[in-house]
Amino acid sequence: MKSHKVAMLGTGLIGDFYTMTLHSQRSRDRVSIVYSQTDERARVFSDRWDIPAYTTSIEEAINHDEADTVIVGLPNFLHEEVIIAAAETGKAVLCTKPLARNAEEARRILDKVESAGIFAGYLEDLCYTPKTLKAIRSVEAGAIGDVTWVRSRETHPGPHSAWFWDGRLTGGGAIVDLGCHCIEIIRNFVGKGNRPVEVLCHTDTLVHPIADEDNAVALIRFESGAIGQFEVSWTFRGGMDLRDEVAGTHGTIWLNHFLRTGFEMFTAGGGEGYVAEKAETSAGWLFPVGDEVSELGYVDMFTDMFGALDEGKQPRETFYDGYVVNAIMDACYRSAKSRVWEPVELDWRGGTTPRIGATPETYEGHVVIKREVLPDGRQKLILKDPQSGDFVDRIVAGGS
Amino acid sequence: MKSHKVAMLGTGLIGDFYTMTLHSQRSRDRVSIVYSQTDERARVFSDRWDIPAYTTSIEEAINHDEADTVIVGLPNFLHEEVIIAAAETGKAVLCTKPLARNAEEARRILDKVESAGIFAGYLEDLCYTPKTLKAIRSVEAGAIGDVTWVRSRETHPGPHSAWFWDGRLTGGGAIVDLGCHCIEIIRNFVGKGNRPVEVLCHTDTLVHPIADEDNAVALIRFESGAIGQFEVSWTFRGGMDLRDEVAGTHGTIWLNHFLRTGFEMFTAGGGEGYVAEKAETSAGWLFPVGDEVSELGYVDMFTDMFGALDEGKQPRETFYDGYVVNAIMDACYRSAKSRVWEPVELDWRGGTTPRIGATPETYEGHVVIKREVLPDGRQKLILKDPQSGDFVDRIVAGGS
Amino acid sequence: MKSHKVAMLGTGLIGDFYTMTLHSQRSRDRVSIVYSQTDERARVFSDRWDIPAYTTSIEEAINHDEADTVIVGLPNFLHEEVIIAAAETGKAVLCTKPLARNAEEARRILDKVESAGIFAGYLEDLCYTPKTLKAIRSVEAGAIGDVTWVRSRETHPGPHSAWFWDGRLTGGGAIVDLGCHCIEIIRNFVGKGNRPVEVLCHTDTLVHPIADEDNAVALIRFESGAIGQFEVSWTFRGGMDLRDEVAGTHGTIWLNHFLRTGFEMFTAGGGEGYVAEKAETSAGWLFPVGDEVSELGYVDMFTDMFGALDEGKQPRETFYDGYVVNAIMDACYRSAKSRVWEPVELDWRGGTTPRIGATPETYEGHVVIKREVLPDGRQKLILKDPQSGDFVDRIVAGGS
Amino acid sequence: MKSHKVAMLGTGLIGDFYTMTLHSQRSRDRVSIVYSQTDERARVFSDRWDIPAYTTSIEEAINHDEADTVIVGLPNFLHEEVIIAAAETGKAVLCTKPLARNAEEARRILDKVESAGIFAGYLEDLCYTPKTLKAIRSVEAGAIGDVTWVRSRETHPGPHSAWFWDGRLTGGGAIVDLGCHCIEIIRNFVGKGNRPVEVLCHTDTLVHPIADEDNAVALIRFESGAIGQFEVSWTFRGGMDLRDEVAGTHGTIWLNHFLRTGFEMFTAGGGEGYVAEKAETSAGWLFPVGDEVSELGYVDMFTDMFGALDEGKQPRETFYDGYVVNAIMDACYRSAKSRVWEPVELDWRGGTTPRIGATPETYEGHVVIKREVLPDGRQKLILKDPQSGDFVDRIVAGGS
Repeated sequence: MKSHKVAMLGTGLIGDFYTMTLHSQRSRDRVSIVYSQTDERARVFSDRWDIPAYTTSIEEAINHDEADTVIVGLPNFLHEEVIIAAAETGKAVLCTKPLARNAEEARRILDKVESAGIFAGYLEDLCYTPKTLKAIRSVEAGAIGDVTWVRSRETHPGPHSAWFWDGRLTGGGAIVDLGCHCIEIIRNFVGKGNRPVEVLCHTDTLVHPIADEDNAVALIRFESGAIGQFEVSWTFRGGMDLRDEVAGTHGTIWLNHFLRTGFEMFTAGGGEGYVAEKAETSAGWLFPVGDEVSELGYVDMFTDMFGALDEGKQPRETFYDGYVVNAIMDACYRSAKSRVWEPVELDWRGGTTPRIGATPETYEGHVVIKREVLPDGRQKLILKDPQSGDFVDRIVAGGS
Repeated sequence: MKSHKVAMLGTGLIGDFYTMTLHSQRSRDRVSIVYSQTDERARVFSDRWDIPAYTTSIEEAINHDEADTVIVGLPNFLHEEVIIAAAETGKAVLCTKPLARNAEEARRILDKVESAGIFAGYLEDLCYTPKTLKAIRSVEAGAIGDVTWVRSRETHPGPHSAWFWDGRLTGGGAIVDLGCHCIEIIRNFVGKGNRPVEVLCHTDTLVHPIADEDNAVALIRFESGAIGQFEVSWTFRGGMDLRDEVAGTHGTIWLNHFLRTGFEMFTAGGGEGYVAEKAETSAGWLFPVGDEVSELGYVDMFTDMFGALDEGKQPRETFYDGYVVNAIMDACYRSAKSRVWEPVELDWRGGTTPRIGATPETYEGHVVIKREVLPDGRQKLILKDPQSGDFVDRIVAGGS
Repeated sequence: MKSHKVAMLGTGLIGDFYTMTLHSQRSRDRVSIVYSQTDERARVFSDRWDIPAYTTSIEEAINHDEADTVIVGLPNFLHEEVIIAAAETGKAVLCTKPLARNAEEARRILDKVESAGIFAGYLEDLCYTPKTLKAIRSVEAGAIGDVTWVRSRETHPGPHSAWFWDGRLTGGGAIVDLGCHCIEIIRNFVGKGNRPVEVLCHTDTLVHPIADEDNAVALIRFESGAIGQFEVSWTFRGGMDLRDEVAGTHGTIWLNHFLRTGFEMFTAGGGEGYVAEKAETSAGWLFPVGDEVSELGYVDMFTDMFGALDEGKQPRETFYDGYVVNAIMDACYRSAKSRVWEPVELDWRGGTTPRIGATPETYEGHVVIKREVLPDGRQKLILKDPQSGDFVDRIVAGGS
Repeated sequence: MKSHKVAMLGTGLIGDFYTMTLHSQRSRDRVSIVYSQTDERARVFSDRWDIPAYTTSIEEAINHDEADTVIVGLPNFLHEEVIIAAAETGKAVLCTKPLARNAEEARRILDKVESAGIFAGYLEDLCYTPKTLKAIRSVEAGAIGDVTWVRSRETHPGPHSAWFWDGRLTGGGAIVDLGCHCIEIIRNFVGKGNRPVEVLCHTDTLVHPIADEDNAVALIRFESGAIGQFEVSWTFRGGMDLRDEVAGTHGTIWLNHFLRTGFEMFTAGGGEGYVAEKAETSAGWLFPVGDEVSELGYVDMFTDMFGALDEGKQPRETFYDGYVVNAIMDACYRSAKSRVWEPVELDWRGGTTPRIGATPETYEGHVVIKREVLPDGRQKLILKDPQSGDFVDRIVAGGS
């Protein structure tokens, strides 16, 4: 039974979630040192999570004797520099999302870890929620046929930390913060080998007095013809809205990860404080989730990461995936400016995917458009005459 | 107490819904003559709904002595010709959606009824669902602040009648069939005086062997900055998905009109047949609606139409609205081809709407980006320095 | 086309709902006179609903020339006296629920209207919600097999008017206020010909400083073996909870009439006031219903009542049904005191209903307890040896 | 970091769930030997879960050198004998639910482990679902005030294994199989120190040709006045219905653990097989759960068990709890026969709990029954005159 010791870089919300997950349930893995920018924050964090060592030196953290794995939970603008330093140590590196501020940075990070030959994992938690994992398995097993459309939506009233709001540090606004999740969820459903060809995106800054977008909608067209659609917002009211919808030729999947998961509470108020990440109210109808680190994918994510590391395999989410996400986001920003479809520019490693499509069924020389069962059990066919292009209804005998 | 006698043109699904509504509950109004293309269909329909007369002559129907109102429930390509004829009689004319195959046709129809001076109502039922009406009132009362985004979705596995599939007769595919609903729902939420400026649209034909689109997604940008987003599909599996989502600066509204309305049934099968319009299965988990003609807006629609007619007022949904919808759909089709934002070309009567926006709050010379209440009751402000553009967290004393 | 003129007795919440319904949509019927205890209330009500006459004399109201129908929307303790007076006029009488304070009073009311030969309807609105009507039709069509259990739940934070809280005027507490609905809903699902045999009930006064019960749970055993279960409370927090669940041998039905009907709204507050009957909050997540008078059954109820009156038939809900409900509530109160099953004492007119039950399937001389399809497609039978009483698993070949 | 080696007794569905949990994610604990009645089953199970040893001898299993913990996942009738043997080894013993067939057996088991001084844990998984744990914390933090009523419902179409159907082996029918879960869930919400005083229960055998109950409803009255209500059934159609509802003086909690958890899938069929434990269909609308072993509480349960074992503390669910549950079930069976409230006979260790209740608020010498905010912002009080017992409405100035 292998276990891992982690150097945790960063003590923000994401550092808390990661550490809570690593130290939860019967996990074998532990954080052995934590880095924060200030001594105070590092100390408080190490106390909260019972971590034996803390430091304000990134170098000290990544070179800590105990630690075999470095987890990067720092603001986006620090990723490249820190990962390059960590890669030198030969240790495994796991990096929070997004991988970088843009594809160029992501590409340099990817090249570095590949040339260093280290294990690298992209911590895209929302691709690991138990619902998502099971839904992906259902899609791969053919339960909904060919995927035609995926909607991934992540919206809330805006980030908790100041640096998130500064596009110079992050690379953008709501797209870089939230869209990176949506894009990778979409890729998991349409198939990671399905090339993202081009992107259409609209952004706007409607509510917050900032320079970057607080709202965006985008379409991603994949090689198969499938459309990925994401909606991100920092102006949503009512909590955190995390939903995915997948349409296929033979089925449909709807996932709700946060606001409607079978846990409903009304309280007249007066009780405890913290209900859920990004709940807006503490009285009235509230919608908590059971176990956030499980429901939001952190548990399965680290299981996959350390499992892959132990077995010498690639994790489900790699730095290459992170690079693809950055490339798609770059295309989104270009499209938002140019207002046209923009190609996704990337070094594609994924092969080709055929166009969605079926050979049309025929009936007495006509193309069958649709079959319906009438209330009396007979079948109605809607047929198209291939010569004239005319459509007709035809009732045929027999039940279902 | 006034009552109306109707000449019903058309005996398809929509004719059934209209007549079912008119003859339901304690309504004062009745269909007095019905027209269908074939004698057989006209007769069966008149029997089913206890209508005193039927005909295969449109002229006879619209000139029927008893009838004071003509309802057009015919395929799109017949609207212009029939409405022009009906307008000559001076009777009130109510027309199903969409008003026409394109804005040019719609404009001619509009001009005709305006020059004839007759009462004309646009039968856009989904703008009259009780949920929608109440939600619109809430929005108008300020319950969610300024509307920033509206999503309207209508998808099902494809129409029941052959002519719907023939773009030559309808003017297009899923957009003309379903998008017309979504567009007018969106307009009701963003405000009818809010000019639709431009449109971005993607269409594709993914499943059915037809010439027109069976899937489309579009964005409509309104003058205020609000975005309307519609998703339509003839390839959805699982029934008819009718949902609207409205985001505002101070709130959120989610409406589900069909598949999840608080009525859930599991049946091992073997019982009755017809469950709901466009249900795909007759066993397993089913999701009926209570009273379709009420839930889908038909009841409130005719109340508004005949009420307006009696009081000499305009109904909520006019032929001008129908024309605007056609103009937006035209822009959608242009955009789907050109792959860029296309302006909505129309004779605008609606005035101007200011940009969404608030004067930013300030705190000690900084712009307040966000306020949060911490678990311990203190408030955290995220502030932006207007000079440097830097963002900082600031904890301020005091509870909620 | 017949229409009716109503003498409305009572100007409380129920009088508002009734009048709102009668005057809504395209109804042919109108209130022509309203009675209230005080001149002020009568005047305000007649203004609000545009009623031509008002009075503080019950006698004047029921004898009003215009009115052909008397609607009793008064506190329970006045029903008997008023209905007896109204019956003398020969006019139709419709009475709100419960019919009386107890079965003895109800019986006298019933005898009176029967001997007078007048039309009498029991205004049990919740048996007429569109969902309930459709669900009952599904049950009657066999969609869920034999009904084994019905749960009907109605709870809210307590009534709006003072007299409701006074058991001397009403006949009890939450059972008389809310349980009467539940009982009749249950009867509609198990079948009105299914005799209610006995009752087990627990009541308590947990929160409000009153003499009568503010919480109750009861079981009603019907002749078929089906169990009706109702839960009523005046101490529920979160709005009005109106749910029914029906279990059958071949299916399940879940109805939610109020708090979860596909209409969800979050508001930061500051907007309009009235959201829904018995909503507890005006900010945060709210769950309005579309059209209350339709969703709560008032529209279909009056359609049935006046339709039956016009056609000389009995309405779905009669004074006899009201009497049965009172008899069951009497048994509930007796059981709550005696703490044992109490027989339902009533003059039964409904015939007999056979015991739920199927002839057991057999397989090679064993009784089949259950069939299951295994993941590999084979069938597993759980069998019982009728001699030994032993149970065994048996795998049989073949798929579904 | 401690880890545990388990001797797993039993290879049925519950053995699978336990082992899946122990071997899942990053758990430190492993099954080192498995016992089954037949060599074939033991071998297949050990292969499936990669367990180093298997046996058909219980004695060999519990004495296995490697194992420090014995998990009893055997039919109820074997619990006493096996636990007594295991207790002799001094190892920790964890036993599946119910602890025994009746309180007498449970008491002997409890006495044995207490006299042997071993660690013993009661594997009541549904008290450990993440939703339940969080909801209990909310209740303990006062979020819903005093608990007045808990409904716990567990129903499905019947067990998978033959022995479950044989009351001689289990101690009863659906109550022993499912009610044991509900009872302990209820106790967690009303407070484990809240004595269960008496029980009212109705059972019936409506569908399956068996001697024991396939349906039951029961009320448990606790010392505080709170009512626990459970509904169990082996005849439910539609999957497995696992819901809890908690009412309190200041709030409400609704938990749905299985059929409606934010995961909805429609499939036209043709894809994979296994969707979820006790799903009834493999096409149409399906409602999977994300990660069953997490959602159903197994993960948190073993974390608590092994954590307590490591720290020398009692787990949340002890054999004493199991004994209380058996005592309540015994009272249920007595009540179902006697048809009256039956006292819960048990050796109570839990102290006393005061009656739910508040000192009534007064206003000008009257008792305040209810406060309401009117649409215009004024407050309405419903007041009771303590002398006369009369109730009046009183409007008082001022807004919310």
